[in-house]
Order: sequence, then C-alpha cells, then structure tokens
Amino acid sequence: MLEKTEQYREVTVKTEPIFQGKIISLQVDTIQLPNGGTATREIVRHPGAAAVLALIGDKMLVVEQYRKPMEKFQIEIPAGKLDAGEDPMAAAARELEEETGYKAGKLRPLSAFYTSPGFADEKLYVYLAEDLVKGESAPDEDEFLAVEAITFEQAQQYIREERISDAKTVLAVYAWQVYRLTGEI
Amino acid sequence: MLEKTEQYREVTVKTEPIFQGKIISLQVDTIQLPNGGTATREIVRHPGAAAVLALIGDKMLVVEQYRKPMEKFQIEIPAGKLDAGEDPMAAAARELEEETGYKAGKLRPLSAFYTSPGFADEKLYVYLAEDLVKGESAPDEDEFLAVEAITFEQAQQYIREERISDAKTVLAVYAWQVYRLTGEI
Repeated sequence: MLEKTEQYREVTVKTEPIFQGKIISLQVDTIQLPNGGTATREIVRHPGAAAVLALIGDKMLVVEQYRKPMEKFQIEIPAGKLDAGEDPMAAAARELEEETGYKAGKLRPLSAFYTSPGFADEKLYVYLAEDLVKGESAPDEDEFLAVEAITFEQAQQYIREERISDAKTVLAVYAWQVYRLTGEI
Repeated sequence: MLEKTEQYREVTVKTEPIFQGKIISLQVDTIQLPNGGTATREIVRHPGAAAVLALIGDKMLVVEQYRKPMEKFQIEIPAGKLDAGEDPMAAAARELEEETGYKAGKLRPLSAFYTSPGFADEKLYVYLAEDLVKGESAPDEDEFLAVEAITFEQAQQYIREERISDAKTVLAVYAWQVYRLTGEI
C-alpha cells in the first residue's frame, strides 16, 4: 500500500518569498492538491545542522544554553548549524570542539532526520563521538553556554525534569540506551 | 556547572513581527547578550503537535504522505498539530483515528520534545497506543495519505532507505526498540 501514493505528490503552482534571515528563510507555496483543489504550505528553509553524542566512559557531554524560542535554559548535546557547503561530519567535529573543547578520536554516523517535516526542511545529522581528547573550547561570539559530562541516569533525570527536552538530545539518549543494552549503535 | 548559567539569559530588547500564517508565525527578536552586545533571533511560533506510536501485535502503524518542505514522500507515525486549546493526548487520539481509522484502548505518554529549539517553539508530544480497535479513517480535506502496519525490521529498513527520516518517527522506533528489549517504555 505504501507504494501507491505517487498521485499524492503536491505540485507547486506559486512560490511567495516572505523573509530571508541570517539563519532561516520563509516562503508560502500554493500547491495543486490530488483532488484538483489548491492549498498553501508555509515552508521554512534552514541550512541543516549537526550534533554529537560524545561519550567519555559512562558519561556523555552536554551543554546548557538559553533557548530564546522557549524562553528557557535547555541541556542539549553539542550541535550547530552547517556552514555553507560544509560536510555534516566536519560540522559535528567542529561544533564538538568549539562548544566543549573536546576532539573526537572516533566519529561515526548515528542518525539523520528532519526535525519538523510539516513546515521546515531542516535536516539534523547526529554522530557518535568516542576516544575524546581534551583541548580548549571556543564558542561563537554570541553563544554562551556551560559544559558538563553526565551519566545515563542523570540524562534520564534531566528528561523527566524537562531540562533535556529537544528532539536530538532525547533521541541521542534513546540511542545511548540501545548502545548500552546491545553494544550496537 | 549546569546550575550557574542564569547570567546567560537572553533579554528581549525588541520584537519585530514578520509573518502570521495559517499554521506558523515568524518574528525577529533583538536581544541583549550577556557580554553587553546585542544579537537577533529568528523565531518561528507553532501551536505544537501530537504523534502516536501505535502498536498492533509486533507491528506499528505508519502513514505515507508527501512532505512539501523536502519535496518527497515520507513514512511517519500518525501525527498532527494541536487545535487551539486542545489537550495533546486528545489530539493524539484524534489524529490516530482520523489518519488510520484506529481507536486506542490504551494511550500513555511516551515522550515530549521541542523539534528545533534554535529557531522554533514547536513542542511535539508522543504517545504509546495499544489495544487498538479498527474503525474508519477520515483525513483532513487537504491531507492525502496511505496507511500500513510494519514490523520493527521493516521500520529499520525504511530508516536505512531514508523513507523514514523525521525526528518523531526515528525516535519512536528507538523507543519501540527499548520497549522490545526491556519491556519498559
């Protein structure tokens, strides 16, 4: 049944550019519906991002920073948006080092997903970092954060308290749990 | 160290409304930085959404639909945005029934997370649905989708093929794996 949906493709009739920002842009597309009618789709364009589940022994590295859209502090795995044309794995290594000061001896793909497929094209690439070596952190000039290594139990506690409550970090903690249970990632 | 970040709070100096759509709105906030400078934050407001990991024996229910922001078909767990003032669990039950025709005998919270904390306030609530009873589906009038029940192995295969590649569904498959391994959710 999942093979027979081609007629549901949404064909663009018109694209209206709304906003071009530093990070995101916004457009409204008018589309032809499969039943002959039209509808609009509000679409945010985003350059994509990379994040890192960085394990040091039985702990993972997290950063705490203020998240303006929710007006609260959040504990998250290190992450950041891709620079223009940047390879996601290179971005992951860069963000890990900038935000935490650690370099990964071993970095491999863990997951990749669209964060909000209904209205945004943002794709987030998550890597597993192991064999970490401490260097010096150098956050962006408008980025203020605190770094810590936490245990799996602390991560679960932070999730219960909603201090960890973003998709990539909750997903990374699930992946870490599977890794602990099965030895596979 | 994660307790000492209060000085990193971002105080709003100015809010510029950019766009008010059917589903999302966009604003640009100017903020005071902890170092005395200012910066801007591009912020998408979204009403939030609910999704359902619906298990029938050893299978989970998925829907396939066209996702305009990525211009491709995606296989996802049933989900939809919250109506104004709607309880997320009620929305989950409603979307499950509208999109798949199934009613859940048992529905309980599985996870809740912000999809893109850097630029959006969208919060997504995920529920586990069990003891499903078949009724009739009734998708929204501009929503066209196909429904199927897939095994865990099929889900992992779809992830490898990137036919499943959105945050909530990838996360739900991890949660399902943990449920299968531990009996707990």
